Amino acid sequence: MHDSLLVTIRRFITLGLAEEDLLRQWFVPETVPKGAFFLQPGEVSRKIGFVLQGVFHYFQGDDGQRLTYYFSREQEFIGDYESFLSAQPATHGIQALEEACLLTISADNLQRLYREVRQGEHLGRLVAETLFVDLLRQLTSFYKDPPAQRYARFVRTYPDLVQRIPQ
Amino acid sequence: MHDSLLVTIRRFITLGLAEEDLLRQWFVPETVPKGAFFLQPGEVSRKIGFVLQGVFHYFQGDDGQRLTYYFSREQEFIGDYESFLSAQPATHGIQALEEACLLTISADNLQRLYREVRQGEHLGRLVAETLFVDLLRQLTSFYKDPPAQRYARFVRTYPDLVQRIPQ
Repeated sequence: MHDSLLVTIRRFITLGLAEEDLLRQWFVPETVPKGAFFLQPGEVSRKIGFVLQGVFHYFQGDDGQRLTYYFSREQEFIGDYESFLSAQPATHGIQALEEACLLTISADNLQRLYREVRQGEHLGRLVAETLFVDLLRQLTSFYKDPPAQRYARFVRTYPDLVQRIPQ
Repeated sequence: MHDSLLVTIRRFITLGLAEEDLLRQWFVPETVPKGAFFLQPGEVSRKIGFVLQGVFHYFQGDDGQRLTYYFSREQEFIGDYESFLSAQPATHGIQALEEACLLTISADNLQRLYREVRQGEHLGRLVAETLFVDLLRQLTSFYKDPPAQRYARFVRTYPDLVQRIPQ
């Protein structure tokens, strides 16, 4: 159940066996039915998820006028980092586009991870840096590229997602 | 010279006296004349700056068609984090809009900071998280708000910058 999570984390840091056991305790399995929300807009984000199976849709606004701005899928972390860090209500929602399976960690256990895993803070820094650079690329593309070019890049980067996401 | 840097860092972590001395060694004073570049597009970013005095302009493209997408000023860190982390050429430039004074740290010394300052990794994580959340707010606003509203927010957030930036 936790293998792909541990593989992903080991890309950033070295883990001892006792630390692996802690991670297995802290990351708890959870399923999200198709169409259900991992996070509702306005809710405070209190956990981070690691996607084992499924595609998630980040959006703003209500059903009348939804703005999509991100998708996440297997082997990626999901959550509203802003809401999670600040404990303020989330400005966007995260919805499962397929029946999904996750491992989730609570805010308290993530703080324990930073303290009790030897390279926990190092992991946190590298993950935050990776998220920042990904977001910067997205923002740069938004400023610079016309919509058709952004769509073409999306198709190139996520060829499988084009099949999995309803238009 | 280093006081405002140490105050800024102490907002995130506790520093011992020996650690303060290391930071004074690692962060080196540097001036940038008005109109000169802290980073040229295409150059690899090999240092991070902390602005003591001045305003910097982040842009893409050449003189013919420049796209502004960020400003930084006193008590903020500047650099192309993407280029700095990946050692790839920067996709944008950073130019001083006024005669500027900085403290800069090299990539090597930043790695030493992460290793040798007790809470160095913790600092790195918190700074990366702060940068990520700021960028996310910017991206969200770009998706959601019309240009006039974005400009109004900019004026509200940075009232002094409106005077200091040429239109």
